[in-house]
Amino acid sequence: MTIRTLVKNLAAAPDGPVSVSGWVETVRDQKKVQFVVLRDESGAVQLVHPRTDTEEGSQPDATAATISALTTGSFLTVAGELKHDERVKLGGLEVKIGELEVAATALDLPIAEDSSVDKRLDYRWIDLRRPEMNLLFRVQTTFLHALRNWWVEHDFIEIQTPKLMSSPSESRAELFQVPYFETTAYLAQSPQHFKQMAQAAGFGGVFEVGPAFRADPSFTSRHATEFVSVDAEMSWVDSHEDVMAMHEQLLVAGFTAIKQKHGDEIEALFGLEVTVPTTPFPRIPLAEAKSIVAERGYEIPRADADMDPEGERRISEYVKEQYGHEFVFLTDYATSIRPYYHMRHGDDPGLTNSYDLVFNGVEISTGAQREHRIDVLVEQAKDKGLNPDEIGVYLDFFRYGVPPHGGFGMGLSRVIMLLLHQPSIREVTYLFRGPNRLEP
Amino acid sequence: MTIRTLVKNLAAAPDGPVSVSGWVETVRDQKKVQFVVLRDESGAVQLVHPRTDTEEGSQPDATAATISALTTGSFLTVAGELKHDERVKLGGLEVKIGELEVAATALDLPIAEDSSVDKRLDYRWIDLRRPEMNLLFRVQTTFLHALRNWWVEHDFIEIQTPKLMSSPSESRAELFQVPYFETTAYLAQSPQHFKQMAQAAGFGGVFEVGPAFRADPSFTSRHATEFVSVDAEMSWVDSHEDVMAMHEQLLVAGFTAIKQKHGDEIEALFGLEVTVPTTPFPRIPLAEAKSIVAERGYEIPRADADMDPEGERRISEYVKEQYGHEFVFLTDYATSIRPYYHMRHGDDPGLTNSYDLVFNGVEISTGAQREHRIDVLVEQAKDKGLNPDEIGVYLDFFRYGVPPHGGFGMGLSRVIMLLLHQPSIREVTYLFRGPNRLEP
Repeated sequence: MTIRTLVKNLAAAPDGPVSVSGWVETVRDQKKVQFVVLRDESGAVQLVHPRTDTEEGSQPDATAATISALTTGSFLTVAGELKHDERVKLGGLEVKIGELEVAATALDLPIAEDSSVDKRLDYRWIDLRRPEMNLLFRVQTTFLHALRNWWVEHDFIEIQTPKLMSSPSESRAELFQVPYFETTAYLAQSPQHFKQMAQAAGFGGVFEVGPAFRADPSFTSRHATEFVSVDAEMSWVDSHEDVMAMHEQLLVAGFTAIKQKHGDEIEALFGLEVTVPTTPFPRIPLAEAKSIVAERGYEIPRADADMDPEGERRISEYVKEQYGHEFVFLTDYATSIRPYYHMRHGDDPGLTNSYDLVFNGVEISTGAQREHRIDVLVEQAKDKGLNPDEIGVYLDFFRYGVPPHGGFGMGLSRVIMLLLHQPSIREVTYLFRGPNRLEP
Repeated sequence: MTIRTLVKNLAAAPDGPVSVSGWVETVRDQKKVQFVVLRDESGAVQLVHPRTDTEEGSQPDATAATISALTTGSFLTVAGELKHDERVKLGGLEVKIGELEVAATALDLPIAEDSSVDKRLDYRWIDLRRPEMNLLFRVQTTFLHALRNWWVEHDFIEIQTPKLMSSPSESRAELFQVPYFETTAYLAQSPQHFKQMAQAAGFGGVFEVGPAFRADPSFTSRHATEFVSVDAEMSWVDSHEDVMAMHEQLLVAGFTAIKQKHGDEIEALFGLEVTVPTTPFPRIPLAEAKSIVAERGYEIPRADADMDPEGERRISEYVKEQYGHEFVFLTDYATSIRPYYHMRHGDDPGLTNSYDLVFNGVEISTGAQREHRIDVLVEQAKDKGLNPDEIGVYLDFFRYGVPPHGGFGMGLSRVIMLLLHQPSIREVTYLFRGPNRLEP
C-alpha cells in the first residue's frame, strides 16, 4: 500500500519527503510557479511546482504540462518535499511536487457550492466532498460509536432485526409491499415488533441501528421514505421514566464524544458550539406543554390532543428560555394519539407511559413503556380498531412470558440535522430517499 | 427502576437482601420446600421457599401457592435473601424468597430443546432463551463492536447506504422488486455501489453493517433471503493485498475480543476453544487451491473456474493440516467468474485482483480491488454482456474523479456459525428469512 500521509498529519511531520493523495480542489497555473490545492478526507494542502521550462531554450517540463491539464476533482498522488513555511496561508506548509501521478481525471464538475439542493443531491458523491459534509459524517460516526459504547458497557445486546416482515409493524398506512415468492412481504416501518421480541427472549437490554421504511408521500424537511432508526429496548422498567433516563445518558455520551473529538472543527466549519446537555433533561407533560404554548400565544390548530411542528418549536423556545436546555421530554401523551402497544396509566387510562423527545424545536424520538400484559394488550388493540388476528404473530410474543419493558426509536438524521443546524435531512442523509428521489 | 441484581453478579454480592428478575426455568415443588430455577440474561440462580403451611392447622402459605402455580417461562421478580452455600450445585448460592411478583404468566411452552429446527424457529423468541443462544448474540455483539473499534481507530467513516435502489447492485437475478410510488425500486443485494460512491466522495475508509437482500430460492444451510452484511471499502490500495491486510486485522481484533470476553463461556457451553488467528493468514491462488484439492482426490465437478462448497471444505482441511490455520484467502479468481467491477491483473486480464476468505471450510467473504478507471470499467461491463446505460448511475461515480480502492463484504451469520460450529445460519440469525420463512 502506498504509504501516504493524511493531510491532517502533515503539520506534525518533519520537513522532508512525503506522499499525499487526494483530489484537486483548485489549480493556480502561473507563469513561473504552479499551485495545486489538494484535499483528502482529513484536510487540504498546497502543492507547489516551480516551472523548469520558463527560460528560453529550456527542456519541456512534463510535470508542468500535467498540472496545467489537471481538472478540478481529479484524484492524484504526489510524492514530494514537505516544507513548513509560515507564509503559506493554508496550514503554514506546502509540498513541493516531485512525482505526480493522476489516478483518475474528472470531467467538468456539474455542481458548485451554490447549486440547488436537488442538483447537489443528483451528484451527491461530489457534494459529499465538501469539508462540512465530510465532517458531518465523521460526527455521525462518533455519535453512533459513543452510543454503542454506552450500550456495550451496560451489557446490552446488539440485534439486527429483519426488514422483511409478514405483517406491518406500525400501521397499514405508508407501507411498502414486496412480492415475496408465493406471498407478500412488508418492509419494516420500525424494529418495534422484533425488539420487543428480544424482551420475551430474555435478552434484557437490546439496541439496533438500521434502516426503516415509510411509504410517506410527504415532502417536508423532516421526512424520508427510508431512514436510519436508532432503537433500544430494555427489560424490567417501572415506567417510561426509566427509558428517558437511559435515553438522556446516551445523548450525553454521544454529545460528549462529539464535542471532544470534533468540537473545534464544528466551530470552524459550522460556526457552532456543541453543548453537552445536562441531566435530567426537562420533562413536561404534553397537556401542560400545550397550555404553555397557548399562553404564549399559539393555539395548536389540531382537533386531536397532539402537538404540531410549530408547537414543538415554541415549547423548545420556552424550555431554552426557562432552563437553558436544548432538549425537552414531552411526556404522558394521550391514549388517543398513541399506538395500542403503549402502556396506559394505571390511574388514568386516557394517558400513556410515553414521551416524545424534542431537540432544538423538532421531535427526534418517541419512547414508551410497552403494555406487556397480553389480555390488556389485546383489549387495547381492539380499542384502536385492530383485529388481533392480524397482529397474531406479535401478540404471540406475550403469551409465553415477557418482562415489563420499554424503549425508544430515534431518527439518526434528525439528531445530526438539529445538532449542526442543517436545513433538511436531505442534506445530512448519506443518500436521501423520497417519493421523487431514488437516485443515485 | 427496580434495582435488580443480574444473576451473574450474585457471586460477588454479600449475603443479604437482593432483588432478582427473570424467567422460570424449572420448579421443584416438594412437600416441605420449593425450588425455582430463575434465569435472566446473565445466568441462572436457585430460589428457595421453605413452606410455612406444612404443620397441621397452619395458615395458608400464599407464596407457596403462587410457586405451585408457576409455569415454565413465566417472568417474575423476587426480593429475598441471598445466601452463599457451597452445597448448592448451581453457582454455590441461593436466594430465599421473600416477596415474589409474577410479571407475566407463560402458557405451556410449545418447544423444547429437542424440537425440530423449524418448530424452534416458529417460536424463535423462546428458543433464544437458551443460554447458548443468549451467549451467541453476546458474542456477535462483541465481535461487531471490536470491528467498529478498529475502524474508528483507523479513521474510517460509518455509512448507512440506502436499501432502496433504482437499479440492481449486483445482478438482475435474485432481485426483490418494490413498487415505489410511480416507479419500481430494488432491494439492495449489497452496499457495493454506494460504498464505492464513498470513495468518489473522498471519504477514504468506510464501513457499514446492514441488511442485504437476495431473492434466492435455495434452501442450503448457508443462504438466506435477508442477511447482515459487514462491509468495508478503502481508498488508495495498490491491490487486493491491502484489502486482505485490513480484513485479517479486523478478524484478529474481533476474535481477540471474543476470546477475552467470552472464551470461558464458549468453552463451557459450546465445548470450543476460540483461536485467535495469526497473521498473515495463508493465501493460495484459486488455481493452485484447485490443484491441491485435485491432488488430494477431489475433482471439482464444475465447468467454470470456480470452487464448490466441497472444494472449500477440502482446501480448508489442507490449510489446517499444513499451517494449523482456520482461515485461508483464496486469491486471484478468474475474470470469468468475477463481476465486471473487479480489477483485472495488469499482466493477465484472465485473472482479477480479488479473493474469497474461507473460514473453517466455508466461504465467509469476497473482497477485491475495484476497477476505478472509467474507460476500462465500461469495457469490462460490456465484456460481461451488460448494457452500460443500465448501470449509468453507478458509472457516473467514476466520471468525476475517484481514487484506486478496494474492499470486502462479509456475511455476519456465517462467521458466527463457523466460529461456534453451528449447523446452519438459521440457528445463528436473530430471525431467519428464507423462501418459506417470513415469520415470526
